[in-house]
Amino acid sequence: MDAPIIHGGGITEAAAHFGGTPEDWLDLSTGINPCPAALPAIDAGVWHRLPDRHVEEAARIAASRYYRTDGLMPLPVPGTQSVIQLLPRIADPAKRSAIFAPTYGEYARVLKAAGLVVDSVTCADDLQAGYGLAVVVNPNNPTGRLIPPDEVLAMAQAMRAHGGLLVVDEAFGDLEPEASVARHVAACDNLVVFRSFGKFFGLAGLRLGFIVANPPIEESFREWLGPWSVSGPALALSAKLMEGDTQRIRAGIAQRKAALDAVLCSAGLQVVGGTGLFALVEHERAHDLHAALCKAHILTRKFDYNPRWLRIGLAPDAGGDRRLAEALNRGGV
Amino acid sequence: MDAPIIHGGGITEAAAHFGGTPEDWLDLSTGINPCPAALPAIDAGVWHRLPDRHVEEAARIAASRYYRTDGLMPLPVPGTQSVIQLLPRIADPAKRSAIFAPTYGEYARVLKAAGLVVDSVTCADDLQAGYGLAVVVNPNNPTGRLIPPDEVLAMAQAMRAHGGLLVVDEAFGDLEPEASVARHVAACDNLVVFRSFGKFFGLAGLRLGFIVANPPIEESFREWLGPWSVSGPALALSAKLMEGDTQRIRAGIAQRKAALDAVLCSAGLQVVGGTGLFALVEHERAHDLHAALCKAHILTRKFDYNPRWLRIGLAPDAGGDRRLAEALNRGGV
Repeated sequence: MDAPIIHGGGITEAAAHFGGTPEDWLDLSTGINPCPAALPAIDAGVWHRLPDRHVEEAARIAASRYYRTDGLMPLPVPGTQSVIQLLPRIADPAKRSAIFAPTYGEYARVLKAAGLVVDSVTCADDLQAGYGLAVVVNPNNPTGRLIPPDEVLAMAQAMRAHGGLLVVDEAFGDLEPEASVARHVAACDNLVVFRSFGKFFGLAGLRLGFIVANPPIEESFREWLGPWSVSGPALALSAKLMEGDTQRIRAGIAQRKAALDAVLCSAGLQVVGGTGLFALVEHERAHDLHAALCKAHILTRKFDYNPRWLRIGLAPDAGGDRRLAEALNRGGV
Repeated sequence: MDAPIIHGGGITEAAAHFGGTPEDWLDLSTGINPCPAALPAIDAGVWHRLPDRHVEEAARIAASRYYRTDGLMPLPVPGTQSVIQLLPRIADPAKRSAIFAPTYGEYARVLKAAGLVVDSVTCADDLQAGYGLAVVVNPNNPTGRLIPPDEVLAMAQAMRAHGGLLVVDEAFGDLEPEASVARHVAACDNLVVFRSFGKFFGLAGLRLGFIVANPPIEESFREWLGPWSVSGPALALSAKLMEGDTQRIRAGIAQRKAALDAVLCSAGLQVVGGTGLFALVEHERAHDLHAALCKAHILTRKFDYNPRWLRIGLAPDAGGDRRLAEALNRGGV
């Protein structure tokens, strides 16, 4: 099996190679809100006890409202990665799988490792080939391409014609609620939506995501994960945060993204995509630029499959913006 | 597939049936230390970032010392249940599996659900039959039976003779460090040890366990769980707690267990087993006693397979002890 892709959380390796302690580094390698939501007070019992049903139910109800699922109760999972690991189990092994590419690399890695044949596809028409499973990340990472909900639903219809499933990963969808198809899952039995909690709220360390799926698929994931798969603090905190002031979080992210865009523009870099949580830069020698920023102890995300791309996340404050701006000035790439 | 067994964390259901709010109930249905260790201060970044390697490494080093693994680095996992879910993958599907019974029910449930043939065994000689996988919980839940390490190692040898694996679940082993075989894993390639973090430290809501296994098996579990399977706070807190004053926790548990034993003795109940974290009572009509305690909003653990057993966990304080004593007096069963 291929080794897991290093993406985000790789500061330790970067510091070992380029020097400095992990704390010194400015981590722009992820798409995580750099200004974590303040942790609300939670009942001390959620640390102590096995997560009890009423704690899980409260999180599910909050998630159904926050993700606007039209009443369907999302299933809390210990991070989207945990359900990507299980994805081969919902794929028909006799059929090929399709992934809208380029995108988050863990889908192809995990499906291929399970022995499935995976095709990279680029447009809805490609789904006519009769895949057992198709995965689309929307908005896409790293390009930011956003497919309107009616087109996503048409893709689900096309998949249904051949008895296939469509998984829509809306990990970066919190800033684009109108584009979500979560509200259509209840009426579309072959549609599954993955949501990530940690990116928008800036709490990726919690390990929490939700899946929106109809009973047979939702029950399968629940069974495979087993009881108590999500920590009590994650359930309790997320319920409060999803019902809290998400507008303020949204405004904070918008301010940080505007600052990043300004830095990149001043540096003369060409932004070719992104979402509210990161920008995708195209550069003739993006790997050299990545290395130059590493020398300034700033970690960004490069892509083996495209040496012209660099993904740059949000800095936590104006000091971080300046540090990036200065490194780009000095970089001379 | 059978529904997951309801064990621990079932206060919501009990309250729905017998009245009261979950907060009113005295939960003696688990084997969790009722006096959670105080949460040490942790770096705020562990909530925010994907768990970075240096956070995981610190937890592994602390775990190798705390579990006395003779240098082998335990793998953090999001609760022992998460690896029980994966256990069918290390079992040879062409061979039968053996479980030392009676014990924690999730092993048989998960292995059978995966289509494996599972035999209940009771003594080491039974392993001569040539199983692909054998599971022994030691000390055992709910009986408390403790197999000395040399006998466990002999069982591992017997399993090796047929190319089989021995999994030793030491979830209740923190109070019996001398009985652990964790230090022998490095020299015994077919031995795997599961440790639970939450029971002894009273932090089951964290969802954290460790597995002690040699590289090929350890790597397989790591691969199946995928990256970032354990939350950052769980890793950071556990590292500090395992290096903290565990002697005080041990003394607190001993005091609570002595109080439970005194209550059960005064009530004339026959204690036939247990560990430092629970007592196993034998009673002619244990299910009636369970129901009588439920009416007093005290949840204990009954067993479908043995209507004469009741497992009773530790109360958090003297008030809880008195409440149990009074309910047992009034119960009149």
